[in-house]
Amino acid sequence: MNKPKHIDPLPYFSVRDHCLAIAGRTPTELDQFDRPFYIYSKQRIEQKLSALRSVIPSNIHLHYAVKANPMADLIAWLGSRCEGLDVASGGELQKALSLGIAGQDISFAGPGKSLGELTLAIESDCTLNIESETELTRVIELSQQLKKTARVALRLNPNFELKSSGMQMAGGAKPFGVDAETALPILQRMLAAGLNFRGIQIYAGSQNLSASAINEAMTQTFALGAQLSQELGQPLPSFNVGGGFGVPYFAGQQELDLDAVGKHLHSLMQDYQSVFAETDIILELGRYLVADAGVYLCKVTDKKVSRGETFLITNGGLHHSLAASGNFGQVIRKNYPVLIANKLEPTNKNHTEEVTIVGPLCTPLDILAKHVQLPKADIGDYVAVFQTGAYGYSASPKDFLGHPAAHEILL
Amino acid sequence: MNKPKHIDPLPYFSVRDHCLAIAGRTPTELDQFDRPFYIYSKQRIEQKLSALRSVIPSNIHLHYAVKANPMADLIAWLGSRCEGLDVASGGELQKALSLGIAGQDISFAGPGKSLGELTLAIESDCTLNIESETELTRVIELSQQLKKTARVALRLNPNFELKSSGMQMAGGAKPFGVDAETALPILQRMLAAGLNFRGIQIYAGSQNLSASAINEAMTQTFALGAQLSQELGQPLPSFNVGGGFGVPYFAGQQELDLDAVGKHLHSLMQDYQSVFAETDIILELGRYLVADAGVYLCKVTDKKVSRGETFLITNGGLHHSLAASGNFGQVIRKNYPVLIANKLEPTNKNHTEEVTIVGPLCTPLDILAKHVQLPKADIGDYVAVFQTGAYGYSASPKDFLGHPAAHEILL
Repeated sequence: MNKPKHIDPLPYFSVRDHCLAIAGRTPTELDQFDRPFYIYSKQRIEQKLSALRSVIPSNIHLHYAVKANPMADLIAWLGSRCEGLDVASGGELQKALSLGIAGQDISFAGPGKSLGELTLAIESDCTLNIESETELTRVIELSQQLKKTARVALRLNPNFELKSSGMQMAGGAKPFGVDAETALPILQRMLAAGLNFRGIQIYAGSQNLSASAINEAMTQTFALGAQLSQELGQPLPSFNVGGGFGVPYFAGQQELDLDAVGKHLHSLMQDYQSVFAETDIILELGRYLVADAGVYLCKVTDKKVSRGETFLITNGGLHHSLAASGNFGQVIRKNYPVLIANKLEPTNKNHTEEVTIVGPLCTPLDILAKHVQLPKADIGDYVAVFQTGAYGYSASPKDFLGHPAAHEILL
Repeated sequence: MNKPKHIDPLPYFSVRDHCLAIAGRTPTELDQFDRPFYIYSKQRIEQKLSALRSVIPSNIHLHYAVKANPMADLIAWLGSRCEGLDVASGGELQKALSLGIAGQDISFAGPGKSLGELTLAIESDCTLNIESETELTRVIELSQQLKKTARVALRLNPNFELKSSGMQMAGGAKPFGVDAETALPILQRMLAAGLNFRGIQIYAGSQNLSASAINEAMTQTFALGAQLSQELGQPLPSFNVGGGFGVPYFAGQQELDLDAVGKHLHSLMQDYQSVFAETDIILELGRYLVADAGVYLCKVTDKKVSRGETFLITNGGLHHSLAASGNFGQVIRKNYPVLIANKLEPTNKNHTEEVTIVGPLCTPLDILAKHVQLPKADIGDYVAVFQTGAYGYSASPKDFLGHPAAHEILL
């Protein structure tokens, strides 16, 4: 076990008989179909939600960004645990509606929405985060055709960025939203068109582990929202201030200092108390809620030594977990935290070995872990890849090479 | 049009009324479902096959590696145009069999094959490329249980690599096959077990544009095969010498010099005439046959300027074409060749502009082309992304963000 090199995911879960246990159940007990599977732990998500709620102002609304993990059971459950859902396509919207989530509790952002998507959103009372003037024109026309008032907010591309983000979603030239400096006439047009104006959205970046960077961006976000509200001469019904709270994946990364973020949000809510007295402030979180609640489990099917290097071949791989293989947005491949799930102890050095863990695909890209020190594993053992609850299965090329699908369990 | 910067895919296709035409049909004529779609051109694949057959020795067998593109129509058609198919999973094998391809014309390579996959292969008379001693043991046992003689070949990890490859599949420590220096006793065990011994496979690398690198690896491959045949004291029924022939994707890349590769294969076949007199020499090609026959077409749904940069938003993106977005195996993102498919002319500079083309996904990874000079495009125009016939749709995260599926047409 190379704890100094890796973040240790075990505190999130329990251990029974040297085995990883999720909701008290070991991999063998959970493995129903002899296929790789994902477990998403409700308990871990509850911990994250509780930690969040305990530090952020109580009047801030939490939204779950469905794109992080669109598993149906998870959407249904988080729909009841959060104040709303954010979707990124008509497909996600349809799914959320079919699970009984009310359209009024859903907002829909994403560039280039189709007429079908806009129609579904308007008819279901979902809030459309408008991404361009062209989209606004389409919504005004559709609203008239459908004889139904669309609920709309404007997505802004601010002139600042969320520094140190895994992904920059704002600042500079971006395909998302409208440039903040051009927003006022568009907002005025929304109001003049008689749409149900819901406010604005600003999403500056994602996967950020720096509280100071998040706080700096939040300061700018609140200021921009207040400025626009003032220029518009009316309060914003809602203000989605984004999120971007990150989770550690790799060696050397530290958990986000949630206390510092919470404290700063308290101070901003205080400062802007009068401006946003009638405004629902929304935090939109996806990855932060579900990433470390997810464990991908697969089985060792072969073990071989090639020129001094030991390989564990598993029945799982990049077709189920592209991000963990290092092929989704990473520039330099790093190992996600990985353990032999039924051999968590002993940690005696004599019982460990360095291995590279690969999947069944005929491509050198199919690597789950490279040169990791782990307890000696045998065929039939379970490999657990942690931090795979967000942008995991749904963001993977499931059909690549025609291997069986994984299954997913919310527990 | 920035021809000096890009490879020009137009010579592979025709142009009619300023539109790209594939098999004589324009994007508008091909677009049946108002969704992004892939076109795979039979004519272009025929050109590649003819060019190949005209330069390689006539007694070399051509196999199609299904993993490059497993579209059913394409498998069925290439099954009739090649001497065999190579599959990488039980799923691919099942698909090929269901399309009427005989098991004897199929070989199956891939680490960690499941018992179900091995059983299907044995029962259908498919040749199993054995990847480890453990796998051989499983096949011997299954063969006895099923009372059916398995057809087996041994996959080797040679001690040389295919230099300058996009992906190294051999040399050093690898999860694929058995190290060549340990192969002899395994081959002897295959023979002693009474299996139907089909020979060996060596696959050194892929996506290689250097004829001299391919020729050097082929020289070593033939020498290794001859040495093992001699040590074994019997001819190899078949010898899969791999492939790895690359196609150019990016600026500055040159087509593989097929003449040089063909000439070298003629000379090797001559040199090893007596050793391989009874041996079927197999070239296994996937990407080389289908990559540049594939065009991904999507539609401009929005156009916007953000801080001086022009974005075309399309209804297609990384969920259909992960590799073209730069997120599959590339270290540095580069643009695939891209054109406005219904505005191929005029090339007058006044009618062009620099654009970034993105998809509908709420992620900065969803880029189809960055900062390309193209004819001025409008909403409703078609964007064509070329060189997308291999490792395209099947290697993409189709469900990511819940957008509609693409469709595929073999034409």
